[in-house]
Parts: sequence; C-alpha cells; structure tokens
Amino acid sequence: MSTQTLFNVAVVGSTGAVGEQILKLLAERDFPIKSLKLLSSARSAGTKIAFKGQDITVEEAKPESFAGVDIALFSAGGDVSKALIPHAIEHGTVCIDNTNAYRMDPGTPLVVPEVNIDKVNEHKGVIANPNCSTIQMVAALKPLYDRFGISRIIVSTYQAVSGAGAKAINEMLRQSREVLEGNDPNPDILPVGSLPVKHQIAFNAIPQIDKFQENGFTLEEMKMIRETKKIMNDESLEVTATCVRIPVVYGHSESVYVELKQDFDLSEVKKLLAEAPGIELQDDPDNQVYPLATDAAGKNEVFVGRVRRDLSNPRALNLWIVSDNLLKGAAWNAVQIAEHIANTRK
Amino acid sequence: MSTQTLFNVAVVGSTGAVGEQILKLLAERDFPIKSLKLLSSARSAGTKIAFKGQDITVEEAKPESFAGVDIALFSAGGDVSKALIPHAIEHGTVCIDNTNAYRMDPGTPLVVPEVNIDKVNEHKGVIANPNCSTIQMVAALKPLYDRFGISRIIVSTYQAVSGAGAKAINEMLRQSREVLEGNDPNPDILPVGSLPVKHQIAFNAIPQIDKFQENGFTLEEMKMIRETKKIMNDESLEVTATCVRIPVVYGHSESVYVELKQDFDLSEVKKLLAEAPGIELQDDPDNQVYPLATDAAGKNEVFVGRVRRDLSNPRALNLWIVSDNLLKGAAWNAVQIAEHIANTRK
Repeated sequence: MSTQTLFNVAVVGSTGAVGEQILKLLAERDFPIKSLKLLSSARSAGTKIAFKGQDITVEEAKPESFAGVDIALFSAGGDVSKALIPHAIEHGTVCIDNTNAYRMDPGTPLVVPEVNIDKVNEHKGVIANPNCSTIQMVAALKPLYDRFGISRIIVSTYQAVSGAGAKAINEMLRQSREVLEGNDPNPDILPVGSLPVKHQIAFNAIPQIDKFQENGFTLEEMKMIRETKKIMNDESLEVTATCVRIPVVYGHSESVYVELKQDFDLSEVKKLLAEAPGIELQDDPDNQVYPLATDAAGKNEVFVGRVRRDLSNPRALNLWIVSDNLLKGAAWNAVQIAEHIANTRK
Repeated sequence: MSTQTLFNVAVVGSTGAVGEQILKLLAERDFPIKSLKLLSSARSAGTKIAFKGQDITVEEAKPESFAGVDIALFSAGGDVSKALIPHAIEHGTVCIDNTNAYRMDPGTPLVVPEVNIDKVNEHKGVIANPNCSTIQMVAALKPLYDRFGISRIIVSTYQAVSGAGAKAINEMLRQSREVLEGNDPNPDILPVGSLPVKHQIAFNAIPQIDKFQENGFTLEEMKMIRETKKIMNDESLEVTATCVRIPVVYGHSESVYVELKQDFDLSEVKKLLAEAPGIELQDDPDNQVYPLATDAAGKNEVFVGRVRRDLSNPRALNLWIVSDNLLKGAAWNAVQIAEHIANTRK
C-alpha cells in the first residue's frame, strides 16, 4: 500500500479569472490537498466558493495567512505578490507566482514544465509562471529548439480579452451589444485600466497590451522577448514581438516566424510537434484544419498548425500557435508546477 | 476658360461592397462623367441605384455593354473580369480591374498610385488594382524603400470581414448576436464561401483567407508576397505573409517587420512617413495614439504607427499599418487610377 503526502494549499486571488481556473484544475486533477485556504483582497473576503462540494469562505490575504501553508498559488496582481510572497517564504511556503513580480529576478526560476521543469528545484521559495503569450510559444518551439536550434523568433499576437481579467471580458461583450444595437461602445477598461485613454475593443484590434516602455515596445512585448530568452536559457536568441488585443474571449493566437539553425525536413518538424508533450498538431490545410481560439478554449493543450517552410528563407518556418490563455497560459501551467512539487516531495 | 474632357464610365459589380464605395467616391470627387453605366450580374440587374440625385438602373454586364465606354471599373470577381475585360478592351475601354484576374499578368501594370503611378501609361487596356492587404503595406513602405532600401518584409495581418464581401459582414454580425444570446453561431460563409468547411468568425481569429496552395500558404498570402515584389519592381525583395481574418467590419490592420538595407535614424523614418502622400502617421505611445481599424474606417488614408526600431536587428523596423480595405484597399485606389487616366487624357 502507498500513502500519499497531502499538502496545505493556498490560492491567492481565488475570486479572479485565473484563480477560478486554478481551483477547477486542483479539483479535476485531484490534487493531494490536506487543507485549502482561499485568499483575496479585503473587498472579496467573505465570498463563499464551492470546492469539491464544500463551501470555503474567502479570507483576506495577509502576511500571517501563510503560516502552515505548504504551497501557495498567486494570481492577484504583481503588487500583491511583491507584498506577500516574502512573508510566505518566511513561513516556509513554496510560492508559485502567476504575476510579473519575480519573473525576471535572476534567482527565481521561470518555468514552463514542457521546457525547463528541472529549474523548479533551484527555487528559493518562489517559482514564477511566465506570461500567457510566452508560455504557449515556448512550449510549441521547444521540440524544434532541441532538435534544430533556433536563432530568431518574430511573433505577432492575437490576444483574448480574458488576459485582462473578468472586467475586460464583460467590457468586450457589453461593447459588442452596444455596437450591434447602433449605440456608442463607451470604452471604459481596455487597453490598460490604469491609463487615461480607452479604446473600443469590440470589432477592433488594439496594438497595445500593457504600458509602453521607452523603446517603443509595450511591457507585454518586452515580457515575451525577455521571458523567452530566460526560459530557453539562451540570451543569444533573437526575439521580436508585436502584441495585439482582439475581440476574442478565451484563447491567444500567435503568428510565429522562426529561423532554425539547421536545415530541416518539414515532415520531421510536424512529427516532432505531434509527439511533443502538451502539444497538439492541428495541421491539415486540405481539410481546413488549423488551430482556432474557439476550439482551444477550455483545453489545456497548446495547438499548432499552419506549419510551413518560409519561401524566402529555407531555414525558417511559419507557425500558428493557439492556446487557452487562462489554462496553459496561466492556471494549468501553475498547477503543473504545483504537481511537480507535490510529486518530488513524496 | 478651360474645358473639361468628360468620360463615359462603367462600374461592373456596382451592387457589391466595393462597387458601392466606387460610386460614392466618383460622386464625392466629382469625377468628369459624361455617362455612367452600372453593370452587374443578371441577378442584380434591374436594381436602381442613386448617383448624384439620379436613379440609374443596373444592367446585366455583357460583352457588348462596353461599346462607347471610355473607362470601366471592375469589382465583380475574377471570373467576371476574365470573361468581360477582353471584350471591353476590343471596344477601346480602359479597364481598371479590382480582382485577381490580371494582377500577375506580365503585360498588366499593377498600380498603387503612391508607389508606381508611372506604370499606368504602359497598360494594354487593363490596369490591375492590387489586393487590399498589399496596397496599404506597399503604400506605407514606399517612402522607406526609396530612402533606405528594403531587403525583407515579414507581415501578419488582422483582416476585416468586409474583405470577403457584404455577405461576410452580415455573417459576422449575425454570429456575434447568436453568441451573445448563447446560441450556436452556425457558420455559413467564412473562411471561404466555395469551400466545404466553415468556421466561426465571431469572437475568433481564422488563419485562412482564400484557398490553400500546395506550399502551405493561402492564396491571400501568396498575393501579398507576389504583388509586393511586382509593385515595388524588385524580385529580390523577400516577403513572408500570414493572413488572418478577425471580427472587424472595416479596416485591415498589419503587424509588419521590415529590414532596411541601410542604417536609419528613427526620427527620419517618422518624418518620411508623416510627409508621404496618402499616409498619416499616428504614432504617440505616451498618449496611446496608434492606428485603429475603427478610426480608419471610412477614410482614404493609410495610417501608420507603433514605429520602433527592432531590438535584435538595428536595421529593422516594426510598424502597425491600418487602412480601410474597401477604400484605399479597393475603391479609392481604383478611383485614384481612374483620375490619373482622366487627367492625362485631357
């Protein structure tokens, strides 16, 4: 007979769009939980959330909340992570952080399990979950990186509004109704809640996700550039990104041009992708099969299609990569890391 | 006193989405018309269309329709152009063709007035209007090509449903209503009317515009690749395209990576774009100003923003190029060509 180690788990940001998916996955995956603590801002404290048939009352997240907690999953924004994770670490909690707070910290592993799960063991109390648009791209490119090497990536994204939270989903759906009824869409949230200018997202494409940096790139674009290099552990990798919000609810799509370091056979590329863990190849142009955001929504996999050799550079590939930004792009990647920690602690 | 030469003009496909815009522009621009003939398929013949306060009855387009016609603007599909343009040429009509029928014909000029208006004079009866997604890109890149040279372009598009005609607009709006009401969207038209598989366009991104070719690229992507080289008159220009349909009604957006042949100063690039004919620079990240499809709709200009130097290749630029696909991408480009012909015949 085997005995299973059980863990005291906390979910910080449990009432948010990602927190909700984390709880769903912890239940579905039957994560070995001894106790589950649901934490949030003071505003949401007192809310009751059902988990495996039991109602759990959400508590306000405080520095002392982490006493006795083995594993905490954070998705309540960078400021909350920065404020609370140092206290959680003092309590001996292993933190899996879904925000931007620790991702580029040299001492913090930035982990996509299909790419660099070995890095988890180097953690000093916190493991960072990468940005949604980065995760699906590196997961899809890893088998090609390992086999052929990659010198350059040029990516343009088609990102869902759920990446900006539940309020942005409501905003996009509300605006869509207004426009369909001939009314003014009255933009209120996107592109960036904390910035003064708002743009219509319904029936539009907004080339701004997060704030602009001095170099003319947005923070989202810089996340893709920096995080890809860190996860691939290759500072020589050249990455360019243009990040765009489009009126899709769930599922980021990416048009990716990638230069390989070696000649390749297209059928081998497809075979590598088809066999890679966590990847599903959807590539049958004759039958109009390629990844679609609406098909990827609700699934944990990263879907890859439109795989074709570049016409001007025979060592380059073009790909269309789609995944549910709340699942593989956030909650599922975090739960995968939590499962790895649980398995290696047994 | 000056006398103005007046022309007998025909519009073929006058009841379509592009035909409608052509008529609007001919009226707005006060095109020097002696007589205006509205032509269409047998199905639409008999329809009455108002032009400058007069109702004109649409006639079925036939080979003999072009007797006495000086200038004909075609936008009724490639098959109609192939069937009728040879007859129109026999009648001495100068044809401006908005379809794919003659674009890559070596003897036919492919014209974007801001780029190669001089080619109009080489016509042998037909001048081809390029594909919508090509026109806006080459118009924006021309000033950079002339000043610095361009070696490579990698473009990902975010294309409006109006590019697939009025039926596709209705389809997208209908599907949006269905999804908002919790019903099945029942895809019926897109991505390609004549192909068996249909995909949801509402709240989705479809990486297929037109049919797939044997090389894995779609015809739309190949149009962008081939037409760009022909219009720029530079077969050495390397072009890669990924064309994607998104739920926008009017206005194609493009994420464009472009490698220049010389070092450049970013402020000079912006100055060249700001001063170029037909281009409007919208590039003020601090104030969240960049081109948006909803702003470009209904306007003739090509809007350019997000102008930034690439981080991994200092000789490369990233741009966001937006224009109304029915106007500069089709009707306005055709009317510009017609105006040039009218002006040079005086």
